[in-house]
Amino acid sequence: MTIVDVNTPGGRYPIHIAAGRLDKIAESIPADATSIVVVTNPVVAGLYGERVERSLAATGKRVLRVELPDGEQYKTWETLNLIFDALLGNRCDRRCVLVALGGGVIGDVTGFAAAVYMRGVRFVQVPTTLLAQVDSSVGGKTAVNHPLGKNMVGAFHQPIAVEVDTDVLKTLPAREISAGLAEVIKYGAILDTEFFAWCERNAPALRALDPEAVTYAIARSCEIKADVVSQDERETTGLRALLNLGHTFGHAIESGLGYGAWLHGEAVGCGMVQAAELSADVAGLPLADAQRIRALVEAIGCPTVAPDLGADRWLDLMQVDKKTEGGELRFVLMPSLGAAKMRTAPEDAVRAVIARTVRIEDSTALPAVVTEVA
Amino acid sequence: MTIVDVNTPGGRYPIHIAAGRLDKIAESIPADATSIVVVTNPVVAGLYGERVERSLAATGKRVLRVELPDGEQYKTWETLNLIFDALLGNRCDRRCVLVALGGGVIGDVTGFAAAVYMRGVRFVQVPTTLLAQVDSSVGGKTAVNHPLGKNMVGAFHQPIAVEVDTDVLKTLPAREISAGLAEVIKYGAILDTEFFAWCERNAPALRALDPEAVTYAIARSCEIKADVVSQDERETTGLRALLNLGHTFGHAIESGLGYGAWLHGEAVGCGMVQAAELSADVAGLPLADAQRIRALVEAIGCPTVAPDLGADRWLDLMQVDKKTEGGELRFVLMPSLGAAKMRTAPEDAVRAVIARTVRIEDSTALPAVVTEVA
Repeated sequence: MTIVDVNTPGGRYPIHIAAGRLDKIAESIPADATSIVVVTNPVVAGLYGERVERSLAATGKRVLRVELPDGEQYKTWETLNLIFDALLGNRCDRRCVLVALGGGVIGDVTGFAAAVYMRGVRFVQVPTTLLAQVDSSVGGKTAVNHPLGKNMVGAFHQPIAVEVDTDVLKTLPAREISAGLAEVIKYGAILDTEFFAWCERNAPALRALDPEAVTYAIARSCEIKADVVSQDERETTGLRALLNLGHTFGHAIESGLGYGAWLHGEAVGCGMVQAAELSADVAGLPLADAQRIRALVEAIGCPTVAPDLGADRWLDLMQVDKKTEGGELRFVLMPSLGAAKMRTAPEDAVRAVIARTVRIEDSTALPAVVTEVA
Repeated sequence: MTIVDVNTPGGRYPIHIAAGRLDKIAESIPADATSIVVVTNPVVAGLYGERVERSLAATGKRVLRVELPDGEQYKTWETLNLIFDALLGNRCDRRCVLVALGGGVIGDVTGFAAAVYMRGVRFVQVPTTLLAQVDSSVGGKTAVNHPLGKNMVGAFHQPIAVEVDTDVLKTLPAREISAGLAEVIKYGAILDTEFFAWCERNAPALRALDPEAVTYAIARSCEIKADVVSQDERETTGLRALLNLGHTFGHAIESGLGYGAWLHGEAVGCGMVQAAELSADVAGLPLADAQRIRALVEAIGCPTVAPDLGADRWLDLMQVDKKTEGGELRFVLMPSLGAAKMRTAPEDAVRAVIARTVRIEDSTALPAVVTEVA
């Protein structure tokens, strides 16, 4: 088993990564827990619910299940309230432990419920999508959406443990694997050129779920994220904000098309391509590196042509995003590959990138420069 | 001006106490604030809204107002959403500052909104009731109610400053002054017999809003609370939990009658009388001291006879309360006056106290022993 340690002011906890962890989750339940509440959705419950609950029942504690409707459109306060209703209806006290069994939506909603139920109870993340395994389940960001913006209402609340079972990836559709890989390569693009180059070499193995490649990719992603979160839990120094590479464009795609039309990772993948273009235009990123990013996003199976939302709507959607400060439009850009920085960009440069990335249907015909980096 | 410092892991901030502070709130707005959002209700807005906003406008920053419906029954997620709608509709970013102008409900809801809007923004407490000045505006407890329990969904989120204007008390009905004084004498009963005795001597002056007495009572209450909160922000060591003296019974009264029938302070006052009775029965509190508590609650103008909810309903309402842990019924009791402790009590002792405190209409005829303590 690979163990990655996360150490923040808000809590220290392990990420356990191995095949078969679903049967071992009880190891992460503290002895003083009064009850265990598995929060999941009907699809994941059908696949893993009984197995996880059998493992948890071995603690001798009361185990409850709350099933939430499946999908980003249910990442709302109303859904959150289903958890509160169940917790209060079953008289769960401050020492109950929630177990988030599912993808990013389940993790975000369950984590936020844990953050605010009785002003805070403990929870364990059990991510069942690749995207959640390498991103949302680590670092304590929890939230629900608001009609006017994604993740606008939330909290920083660290889990007490993250349990990553690599076996669960086998049941995921290929599209979800690709979406998860977008976040994996993001870590390389932001902070680690060597890992980026490793991803270039291993893109086919990752898409084919080669066990060794997948385990390494998850562990390295979690390491990088844990390192960032350990240094900047609450996104105050600017370091953690770098993890939002591709997210300003990506959120506009998700919000403009309606949450759920594109997977979050797909939007981030395409957003990274757009951020790379903008980086080349205004931040000095060599064009060859922008092309490497486009090529790798394509190689992992994510879209690289953005939807045509209309230029004004694009701008509008990016400005309401929480990366805005004081009315100024800010982006995570890459002055060079593997060294992302927060930068502001003039509106016309942003408009030019949007025009170019939504227009060129032939963008995929660009030479896919997949060079190996020494 | 009296300044009381609060220093918790979640933040350090001053409580400014003086007549006329409403005109000086701008002093508590940080230079980097991008906009200021005054959250209040129509009654308080009518009294102080323009005055406060004029003071805040002197910062040169954008000042917005959000009016929430007035009353405990609106301490809900729906009301919270009115704040989020306004913040997002006006594109308020992470550096906006909320100003909670009102009583405990406004403070709790605004504080919780600040805790979770974009995962946390800053806020200033400007309490306009005595109860909020001496209790809820200090210490960072924020929450909304759930149909199954009071304050069940919330967060610990410290304000960046508390501005207490003693002049505002003049516009309060006598009943609200009495309710606020219940929390004042609570501090003495829990932790400071000398202050309790001072309250006994000064009960008439406090009810008459004698400026010197009121200022001292607020400052001493804030000092005691600040001291407790500084040592135990998140109610983990048991110290902060002592501030809940009278609250287990009190919450049952509020919840059983429907929030708003009794003022929170009235319920706490009556709850303290019941906790004193229980303390005399099971924790060794001398009967004379239980009588001093009853007499002082009466002297400040709060009810000392509890509503007859039916014994089973009483028990039921107390058990769903968040002071319950692992199914055990726990109370803040007073083995001696000024030295409260967390204790468990057998159910039949609790039933006996309920029967006695709801039944005896002649309880107010008990000798009002107001002895001076040396």
